[in-house]
Amino acid sequence: MKAQARSEEIERVCERITALGFKPHIIPGEQRTAIGITGNSGPVDPAEFEDMPGVAEAIRVSKAYKLVSRETKPENTIVRVNGVPIGGEEIVLCGGPCSVETREQILESARVVKAGGGQLLRGGAYKPRTSPYSFQGLGEDGLRYLAAARDETGLGIVTEAIDVETFELVERYADCVQIGARNMQNFSLLRRAGRSRKPILLKRGMSSTLEEFLMAAEYILADGNYNVILCERGVRTFADHTRNTLDLSVVPAAQSLSHLPIIVDPSHGTGKRDKVLPMSLAAIAAGASGLIVEVHPAPDKALSDGYQSLDPEQFAELADDCRAISELLRARHRMTAVR
Amino acid sequence: MKAQARSEEIERVCERITALGFKPHIIPGEQRTAIGITGNSGPVDPAEFEDMPGVAEAIRVSKAYKLVSRETKPENTIVRVNGVPIGGEEIVLCGGPCSVETREQILESARVVKAGGGQLLRGGAYKPRTSPYSFQGLGEDGLRYLAAARDETGLGIVTEAIDVETFELVERYADCVQIGARNMQNFSLLRRAGRSRKPILLKRGMSSTLEEFLMAAEYILADGNYNVILCERGVRTFADHTRNTLDLSVVPAAQSLSHLPIIVDPSHGTGKRDKVLPMSLAAIAAGASGLIVEVHPAPDKALSDGYQSLDPEQFAELADDCRAISELLRARHRMTAVR
Amino acid sequence: MKAQARSEEIERVCERITALGFKPHIIPGEQRTAIGITGNSGPVDPAEFEDMPGVAEAIRVSKAYKLVSRETKPENTIVRVNGVPIGGEEIVLCGGPCSVETREQILESARVVKAGGGQLLRGGAYKPRTSPYSFQGLGEDGLRYLAAARDETGLGIVTEAIDVETFELVERYADCVQIGARNMQNFSLLRRAGRSRKPILLKRGMSSTLEEFLMAAEYILADGNYNVILCERGVRTFADHTRNTLDLSVVPAAQSLSHLPIIVDPSHGTGKRDKVLPMSLAAIAAGASGLIVEVHPAPDKALSDGYQSLDPEQFAELADDCRAISELLRARHRMTAVR
Amino acid sequence: MKAQARSEEIERVCERITALGFKPHIIPGEQRTAIGITGNSGPVDPAEFEDMPGVAEAIRVSKAYKLVSRETKPENTIVRVNGVPIGGEEIVLCGGPCSVETREQILESARVVKAGGGQLLRGGAYKPRTSPYSFQGLGEDGLRYLAAARDETGLGIVTEAIDVETFELVERYADCVQIGARNMQNFSLLRRAGRSRKPILLKRGMSSTLEEFLMAAEYILADGNYNVILCERGVRTFADHTRNTLDLSVVPAAQSLSHLPIIVDPSHGTGKRDKVLPMSLAAIAAGASGLIVEVHPAPDKALSDGYQSLDPEQFAELADDCRAISELLRARHRMTAVR
Repeated sequence: MKAQARSEEIERVCERITALGFKPHIIPGEQRTAIGITGNSGPVDPAEFEDMPGVAEAIRVSKAYKLVSRETKPENTIVRVNGVPIGGEEIVLCGGPCSVETREQILESARVVKAGGGQLLRGGAYKPRTSPYSFQGLGEDGLRYLAAARDETGLGIVTEAIDVETFELVERYADCVQIGARNMQNFSLLRRAGRSRKPILLKRGMSSTLEEFLMAAEYILADGNYNVILCERGVRTFADHTRNTLDLSVVPAAQSLSHLPIIVDPSHGTGKRDKVLPMSLAAIAAGASGLIVEVHPAPDKALSDGYQSLDPEQFAELADDCRAISELLRARHRMTAVR
Repeated sequence: MKAQARSEEIERVCERITALGFKPHIIPGEQRTAIGITGNSGPVDPAEFEDMPGVAEAIRVSKAYKLVSRETKPENTIVRVNGVPIGGEEIVLCGGPCSVETREQILESARVVKAGGGQLLRGGAYKPRTSPYSFQGLGEDGLRYLAAARDETGLGIVTEAIDVETFELVERYADCVQIGARNMQNFSLLRRAGRSRKPILLKRGMSSTLEEFLMAAEYILADGNYNVILCERGVRTFADHTRNTLDLSVVPAAQSLSHLPIIVDPSHGTGKRDKVLPMSLAAIAAGASGLIVEVHPAPDKALSDGYQSLDPEQFAELADDCRAISELLRARHRMTAVR
Repeated sequence: MKAQARSEEIERVCERITALGFKPHIIPGEQRTAIGITGNSGPVDPAEFEDMPGVAEAIRVSKAYKLVSRETKPENTIVRVNGVPIGGEEIVLCGGPCSVETREQILESARVVKAGGGQLLRGGAYKPRTSPYSFQGLGEDGLRYLAAARDETGLGIVTEAIDVETFELVERYADCVQIGARNMQNFSLLRRAGRSRKPILLKRGMSSTLEEFLMAAEYILADGNYNVILCERGVRTFADHTRNTLDLSVVPAAQSLSHLPIIVDPSHGTGKRDKVLPMSLAAIAAGASGLIVEVHPAPDKALSDGYQSLDPEQFAELADDCRAISELLRARHRMTAVR
Repeated sequence: MKAQARSEEIERVCERITALGFKPHIIPGEQRTAIGITGNSGPVDPAEFEDMPGVAEAIRVSKAYKLVSRETKPENTIVRVNGVPIGGEEIVLCGGPCSVETREQILESARVVKAGGGQLLRGGAYKPRTSPYSFQGLGEDGLRYLAAARDETGLGIVTEAIDVETFELVERYADCVQIGARNMQNFSLLRRAGRSRKPILLKRGMSSTLEEFLMAAEYILADGNYNVILCERGVRTFADHTRNTLDLSVVPAAQSLSHLPIIVDPSHGTGKRDKVLPMSLAAIAAGASGLIVEVHPAPDKALSDGYQSLDPEQFAELADDCRAISELLRARHRMTAVR
């Protein structure tokens, strides 16, 4: 739609889409609204729409992912989590422990994240664990502690939903619901996320191609939730100097194919505390819209993943350095744009 | 327990386990019953049980997977699907189309599988698909057609459950419920499978280590379902001459660590029809307890995966050749045993 | 060329190829001779040759590998090593230690291989080692001991050349010169092998695609040595239950694209003694033309790779079982051919 | 040795090492000289050396790689190529085409690199090519053109040696000899590089672990050449959005284990022009000591790898941005050090 398209014009386009037996998707943007079409079995004639008032252009999307594609919506999507924009000019930093362990631990973590310059708080109340005998998270208690941390610090909450059954509960407390790497192709969970009104943080699967990653996001958009944040968290390879191989090249690659924002998880992506800072800087330099990082008030006492968690001072340093790089690149980019 | 242990003796062991605050798992075997213990946070003293009547041995399991481990149960587990034993002397052949498409197609497939020498029928009524816009399966109609095929041919049915919501429906119709590769670490689904009374066919994830594979099975056993069949279906690597890289070495590796039977899916494992026969023979020669193979009455007309489906004649040849190799190895093994 | 083509006819075709500024390659076959053309920068008109006497067909090869392609030579190539045909009806078994350690050790190994039913003896005199401080092989002494073992047992010798400098020495003693996985793209070494009159055993690189593997073989053929045996020895993946992931699907894949024989190395391919037997059986069932297996008179005392070497009894069992499978499949195949 | 150790003291330590039957390695540093010991089959008693004048400390190296290890030499090694220090405070930028094609092309490339702010010129005169029929480089003519470019611009030359035979020729012209990824475990070539007096740029193999990478460098140091620059250039994985997966985490990982400098090749590492800039920034942010980048005066006319080559303007932008990030991080680091 044109930048100045009126809502009646948007409505009329949607009506025509519906009349043709298809499903319209209104994807709002900062400048312009895009309207995606799904439900068609063959190509749709652009001429059907091009003459309608308010329509700027009707484009046939060449990719298997439709709504996620930059062809459908050339402008970057900015997702707001508890008021914090992700995908815009400023990077976003989400920190917190792997698991919510106690009320005190998560409150203390939130203070550390806030003090260090983070805008969002992460922490798992439901944990997908390789072993059935490992600590599986505090469940609703964990969610309540997270909410208390938000109340105190004002930080938005990002926490994982591991199944359809507990999704509603998570959704009630969270400002952004995470779908973990192991669930990237749990299609029922993706559909459930698509029916949610909360933003979704979708992590790339351990051996997911970029196309599969975008198709997973497409599941969420196809069911009506256009607020999806992609997250690279390392893939599985033969390399053994890190727990996973952080594939930063997926950042510019996703950005060129999709309008969705993409952030990076350097904690799971490396699995080693001393690699988190350099890879965080690298992620921001590669153009990521933010980071989700494990921070723990006392990493050595963490119930899970302590060896990859930063301590408060390390997190503050990381936040400062990342902001500095981001600002530098933004300033240079503006200069280039002006030239 | 000793081979001749009486049921009261088994009961008494379970009572003592319960009394200690742990959970007993009675895993029945062809010769002897094994009793696994879970729920303990630290090591349990074997002396607690060694003097009890009927107890042969109390072993501390060294692996993270307890119930799945051959330490817990040295004897092979034989899982019966619609009366067909899997994991015993004879190999089992499960054939059928990727998806149930029509009643006629699945009936015809069942006849082809039966005629070719197969004992079980596969076919998906719920399909996990990379794209939200692809054919997602016929749902309960598909299950009904499968049941009709069983009624006509007597073949047991193996079909996939893709989420907790539809599990009960699938379970009602299926003789064996499949958990697909993408769901291997969908822990809620594994727990649901653990509460089922139907045997479970658990496929290895695309980038799953053997330990993760066995831990996934452990989730099912830990919730009380000891009838799990493992299935290798290829892993994701750089190699591009096949769709996945079929890792047959996992067959003897799983057999040495676990008592559970393991079969192979050469159709997804290679993704190419002309590789299915040689890799099926290889799987049987490597010691697999059976195969799950895509067969279609008319592969070129299949709605999904037709390029990797065998035609009726190819399936019959495969079945004959696999049986011949299996018999040969069994005969030689008996000779060796006698010597 | 036609099956009954006379040598003058072959010569005349080569003359015309040379006259056009290209290079002719006479690749002899059991039934027919194929003549490959290289050195052309663009396509060559088949009509140039189709009317010449003795010519059966002139084919434009569609692949990047020309001489290696089955399009150039539809018939299987049979490579003879010390009189033993590789690529024909019967499988070939090559056994021996990782490294030649002492004269006695290699003589004893040769006796074990001979007694167990092997036809060729392997053993490294020059060893490519990850560490500069590891045992690098006995050099020419090792070659002499191998020759002594051949003198005593009549077994042909397969041993590795690790560089151009020592190639000539290795070539003088060996019946078949091995190019190891790490050298699969050592193009100078491949060219040197192409100028050798000895058959070459070319191992697949650790992360080589099938196309790269065949292109490496093409280097050898392009320089005039048409006696190349391919060898799968496992590729590098994330999987950690074996040292490498043995990719048996490359056997039928290579056979469909190339006329060269392919064998399998289950010792390096798995890195674990108890996986060698099942994967050997699987390799033969998948259609491999033979095996190269590590055998040591006393595996536990081996200087290198002892944990993956078979003892004499295990090798004899492997040889018997593999022959039985091979004969079974051959018999069945003959039946099918007759039908 | 102590910072102020005199050369006689160093000599005396070396004499004692030799007297013990071992080999001394004098590895000069900016502040202090380290002396490595190889040739010992078991542990050496530190007490042998600790009391000698000038000795600061005698350390038992715990890793398989000895001379390369940071245990042997805690201080960063700075390698000088044509006077340009690599591994120090300032990043180094090496640019140029994949292959030297003509005298004019390489002269023009050198001007572009110089003008854009690069310090070193890359370009292959000998090319390792997957196909024997591809352009294999201009050979000595190419080397001569490179030398002419150095004469004109003053840029040092980095060019690849692909075998022992041509090493001497390459060494005569080059300021730094590159060992390519395919040759990372060509041990004869590594040994030859160890006997060279020119710095060596060692690229990581396509499926090399960090340990194997460092062991390959150890081969070079063990033969007496301590001027080795490591280079990450992407590894082979399942991911298909880039040609290789650039593993930037190896930068901090190598730096923590070894004193050798490490740079990054984002051109081969991604294989796509539009990924080169973001991944270059990421590499510098991760702490790499420099970049080796493909630049071509007219990328679309390049004989090889044009699709991943930058044009002159892109290179200049990359150089500026990388320097800015490097300076920013250096300034921040100084601040942190002062605090």
